[in-house]
Amino acid sequence: MLREGIIELTFGEPDPALLAVGLVRRAAAAVLDDAGPAALAYGPLEGPQALRDEIARRVAAREGCACSAADVLVSGGNSQALGQVLTVFTEPGDVVLVETPTYNLALGIMHDHPVEVVGVPLDEEGLKLDALRAALAEQRAAGKRARLLYTIPTFHNPAGVCLSETRRQGLLEIAAEHDLIVVEDDVYRELAYEGHAPPALWTRDGEAPVVRLGSFSKTLAPGLRVGWINASRGLLERLSAAGVLESGGCVSQFAASVVGRLLASGGYDEHLAELRRAYAARRDALAGALRSHLPAGCGCTSPAGGFFIWLTLPAGLAATALLPLAESHGVAFAPGARFCSDGDDRSLRLAFSLYDGATLEEGARRLGAAVTAAQAGRA
Amino acid sequence: MLREGIIELTFGEPDPALLAVGLVRRAAAAVLDDAGPAALAYGPLEGPQALRDEIARRVAAREGCACSAADVLVSGGNSQALGQVLTVFTEPGDVVLVETPTYNLALGIMHDHPVEVVGVPLDEEGLKLDALRAALAEQRAAGKRARLLYTIPTFHNPAGVCLSETRRQGLLEIAAEHDLIVVEDDVYRELAYEGHAPPALWTRDGEAPVVRLGSFSKTLAPGLRVGWINASRGLLERLSAAGVLESGGCVSQFAASVVGRLLASGGYDEHLAELRRAYAARRDALAGALRSHLPAGCGCTSPAGGFFIWLTLPAGLAATALLPLAESHGVAFAPGARFCSDGDDRSLRLAFSLYDGATLEEGARRLGAAVTAAQAGRA
Repeated sequence: MLREGIIELTFGEPDPALLAVGLVRRAAAAVLDDAGPAALAYGPLEGPQALRDEIARRVAAREGCACSAADVLVSGGNSQALGQVLTVFTEPGDVVLVETPTYNLALGIMHDHPVEVVGVPLDEEGLKLDALRAALAEQRAAGKRARLLYTIPTFHNPAGVCLSETRRQGLLEIAAEHDLIVVEDDVYRELAYEGHAPPALWTRDGEAPVVRLGSFSKTLAPGLRVGWINASRGLLERLSAAGVLESGGCVSQFAASVVGRLLASGGYDEHLAELRRAYAARRDALAGALRSHLPAGCGCTSPAGGFFIWLTLPAGLAATALLPLAESHGVAFAPGARFCSDGDDRSLRLAFSLYDGATLEEGARRLGAAVTAAQAGRA
Repeated sequence: MLREGIIELTFGEPDPALLAVGLVRRAAAAVLDDAGPAALAYGPLEGPQALRDEIARRVAAREGCACSAADVLVSGGNSQALGQVLTVFTEPGDVVLVETPTYNLALGIMHDHPVEVVGVPLDEEGLKLDALRAALAEQRAAGKRARLLYTIPTFHNPAGVCLSETRRQGLLEIAAEHDLIVVEDDVYRELAYEGHAPPALWTRDGEAPVVRLGSFSKTLAPGLRVGWINASRGLLERLSAAGVLESGGCVSQFAASVVGRLLASGGYDEHLAELRRAYAARRDALAGALRSHLPAGCGCTSPAGGFFIWLTLPAGLAATALLPLAESHGVAFAPGARFCSDGDDRSLRLAFSLYDGATLEEGARRLGAAVTAAQAGRA
């Protein structure tokens, strides 16, 4: 995937060197020694009880809300969970609202379902609620049902912003009023580099129409394909009744059993602290180098967590057109048009998760040179 | 799940005591020691190359057909695979044809998609092709598109039959003529108790519109959630382009890496031979005991593989009504209505996978007593 000679700031994935290989190794051996057939048989469709207990305990302790195993449905990661949410909750012709920009590969998941995707802009405080209200009114006037809002309110991918406190409350009110299910993709919560992450939408009111998607993909290892869903009992019941679960049991039974043991065995919090130190240093390295090397007219978000900086180009430049030039300078990124359902291409996403500080600094230098060259070419 | 005092012939799952715990334990340790980060990072969306190579090698060797890794897409087991097939290949309002009877939990997976399910009867030679032709004509006359046929041609669940050689050829001709994608659920292939299983539909013509779903759920462990899909390159490309895979990578990356190592390490064939010996003895025990204990008027299929005997009750008895009486005799089964999209309840499914021969014999004795009592009650 990585190309020789190019610093790839494209991919939003954990550094393989920072995956929890040792913890998984020990937990897999322990769970197979102690409970082999149970970890390998069809599991309860809600997921292994031990993992649901551990997740509930962590959520309650770290997020300060009531949470028991009955509030937890184990998933196969947020991609599987989003697919399941679409399958269970949408009907053909429904509208799914997304942020502009949004996680580009979530758009691909939605594309496989017979729904219409409509973008709602965000700014530095996250999703714009006036624009959300306008979109809901517009869809209703057109005789369409806006069923879901897919949002990444905390350490947004790609924009790097967080939904403000005021807007969190306002969003829940709008959702309740319009019977709009809010799908809260919360995959970066544990990667907060400055104090705690803002409270999740789901934790404010366990009965609000919020489906919170949590995951171990960024904090333990994406290849495990283990995450979880928190939602009201009513919504969880509908998700748990999915035919795929009734037939196959928990979608990640073995890996979920390993994660359950891993959490119970200790070491996860120390691992998280190490991740936060490592990724915070990378964020600082890239953000600082961008300030030094980018020409005037560029704007960057300052993410307090997660993996991404969202860079808005000087007026007149488009990210997709810039990419080949950047690659000729030895750096790559993800152009903004990939993340915007309206094709807006004025921005681009830079991921700082894969490289050390020195490489990120060199990447920023190359990017600055490419942008400067593009401006010169236009002049 | 199992109730005290009741012999549960209901559940079609492997005996936990026969799961490949030791093989999985060794393979998990080896793959994490040798390739930890690769097994735990986002994997190629088609699945780990090593597993695809091993599956292709086995398919080619055991089924005598050309097969390379390019013909293999790793799945999260047949339930996940069927869900993905429905998501990718059907549109709202499409008709999905199924056998009557069919695997009941596949009906639940279909129910979550906006398709219409239509049953086509089978007999002791499998799906009735004249009935299939009639169903296709009827759907077309009604202006509907029959997009998929879901079939279990080999060691059918629940009916225990195999599609005959002549009908296999005929089915492929009908499918090609009607642009009907045949979804071949082939999960019991390795559990053949008398020589080899019949050739899979997919292996007869790699370009036919067949999607073969293979799985390690019955042969290694269902909790791994690892299987695979064989199909023509064109169909596989469409399945591989699913948004869930583009976003999350292989749906079972870690478990699939473990299975890849397990297959490469040897021991799987010996494990399979042991399974066949164990399950064949259980089939013989249950089939023999049913012959001894059932009253006249009952009919049983003679499965050459798989987990199930399909018992047709004497005229006038219905399986769902019989179940409480059977439970009061200390035996349980799955009533036929669960498997028949038309609600036909004259038959019932008995699974012989979970118990030893002596318990199965006692189960048959109790069932015979229950049927006799039901007949007496009617008389």
